[in-house]
Amino acid sequence: MSKPAVVLLSGGLDSATCLAIARAEGFEVCALSFRYGQRHEVELQAAKRVAEVLGASSHKIMEIDLRLFGGSALTADIPVPKDRPMTEISHGVPVTYVPARNTIFLSFALAYAEVLNAYDIFIGVNALDYSGYPDCRPEFIEAFENMANLGTSYALASGKRIHIHTPLLRLSKAEIIRKGRALGVDYDLTISCYDPSADGTPCGRCDSCLLRKKGFEEA
Amino acid sequence: MSKPAVVLLSGGLDSATCLAIARAEGFEVCALSFRYGQRHEVELQAAKRVAEVLGASSHKIMEIDLRLFGGSALTADIPVPKDRPMTEISHGVPVTYVPARNTIFLSFALAYAEVLNAYDIFIGVNALDYSGYPDCRPEFIEAFENMANLGTSYALASGKRIHIHTPLLRLSKAEIIRKGRALGVDYDLTISCYDPSADGTPCGRCDSCLLRKKGFEEA
Repeated sequence: MSKPAVVLLSGGLDSATCLAIARAEGFEVCALSFRYGQRHEVELQAAKRVAEVLGASSHKIMEIDLRLFGGSALTADIPVPKDRPMTEISHGVPVTYVPARNTIFLSFALAYAEVLNAYDIFIGVNALDYSGYPDCRPEFIEAFENMANLGTSYALASGKRIHIHTPLLRLSKAEIIRKGRALGVDYDLTISCYDPSADGTPCGRCDSCLLRKKGFEEA
Repeated sequence: MSKPAVVLLSGGLDSATCLAIARAEGFEVCALSFRYGQRHEVELQAAKRVAEVLGASSHKIMEIDLRLFGGSALTADIPVPKDRPMTEISHGVPVTYVPARNTIFLSFALAYAEVLNAYDIFIGVNALDYSGYPDCRPEFIEAFENMANLGTSYALASGKRIHIHTPLLRLSKAEIIRKGRALGVDYDLTISCYDPSADGTPCGRCDSCLLRKKGFEEA
C-alpha cells in the first residue's frame, strides 16, 4: 500500500514536476491548491488538469483571501513588471512576492497531512531562479519542518518525522523540465504566467514567462 | 507614535487578556480573528465586542474553511466531551484539538504583520491549562518565530527580528484573570465555551467552561 503525501499544486511548471516526482517515488498524492485572490483563475484550471492527468488520488482547493491584508502584485493592483533582464529577475525581492505565502500554504498542507496521517509534504520551491523569495530558501524550509514536527500532535505521538520534500530546490529551470519530461509531464497542461489573459494565454513578458521560455530553450 | 502589533483574537478570555496586555505595553493593536468553520459564530461576535471595547485600532476577520480537511471536534461533528475531571483535561491531546491550527493562525498573522511592517505578534497560548495542545508549547512558538524571521522579506531586509509575544504562556487561569482585571478587562464580553447554544449561552460543562469556572473561583 502506498503512503499518502500532500503535494502543493499551483498549476505551474514547477509544481507539476513536483507532483510527477512524488508519484514516481511511489506516493499516493493528495494535491492541494489555493484560491487566494490571485488574479488568474486559469491557474486553478491548470492545476485541476495536472492533478487528473498526472494521477493525483485527490485534489482539494482551499479558499483564502489574502486581499484582506493587501500588499502584493499577485493579489492587489500593482502592475506586474515586464521584459526585465535575467539579472534583475534573479536578484532582490520581486514585486510579485506575496507576504508569508509559502508559510501559509505549508501550514494548510501540514493540517491536511495531519488529518491524512501523512508524513510527507512536497513543495516545488526553487532557490536558483527565484533567489529573491525568502520563503523559497532551504533554511526557511528546514525551519518550517522543525516547527511542523514540534507543533502537531500526530508527529509527537508517533515519534515519526514530518518531511518537507523540495525536489526542485537546487535545479535550474532547464533541469526541472528535463526531469519532468523524463517522467512524462506534458507541460502544455501547465501555466506559469503572472499576468495571463482571461482565456489563459500567457503574456510572454513577465518574469515567470521569461524564466519558462529560457528553461525550454536550454532543456 | 505607537508601534503596530498583530493580536490574534478569538473572543475568549485568554486572547482578550492578551489584547489588553498589548495595549498596556503601548502597541497599536491590529486584531485578527478567523471564521474557520467552528460551530459557534457567537465567538466572533465576542471578538468584535472585545476589539472595540479594549481599544484595537482595527479588527479583521479572515475566512478559512478547515472543514475541507475534516478531523476535529471544533470543525466537524464529533461530540465535545463534557464534565471531565481536571486531571483528564490537563493531560493528553484533547479531541477539540484542531490540526495545525495555531500554525495556520500565526502564518496569517505573519502575512498581516509583513503588510503592516509590524514586528510584534501576540498570541494568548497557555502551556499550563492546555498541556495537551502541542502548538501551545514554548518550543513550538520559538520554532515558529525562527521560521518567521527566515521566511519574510521585510525581516531579512531590515535585520530587525519578528517577535511572537506569549504573555500568558506560563500563567494559571486565575493569574490570567487577575492580570486582565488589573487592566480593566470586562470578562462578560468574552466567551470560552466549546459548545455554546445559538444565543451564546455557555454549556458550563466542556473543558473550556470548567477551566474558566475554576479560574474565576481561584482569582
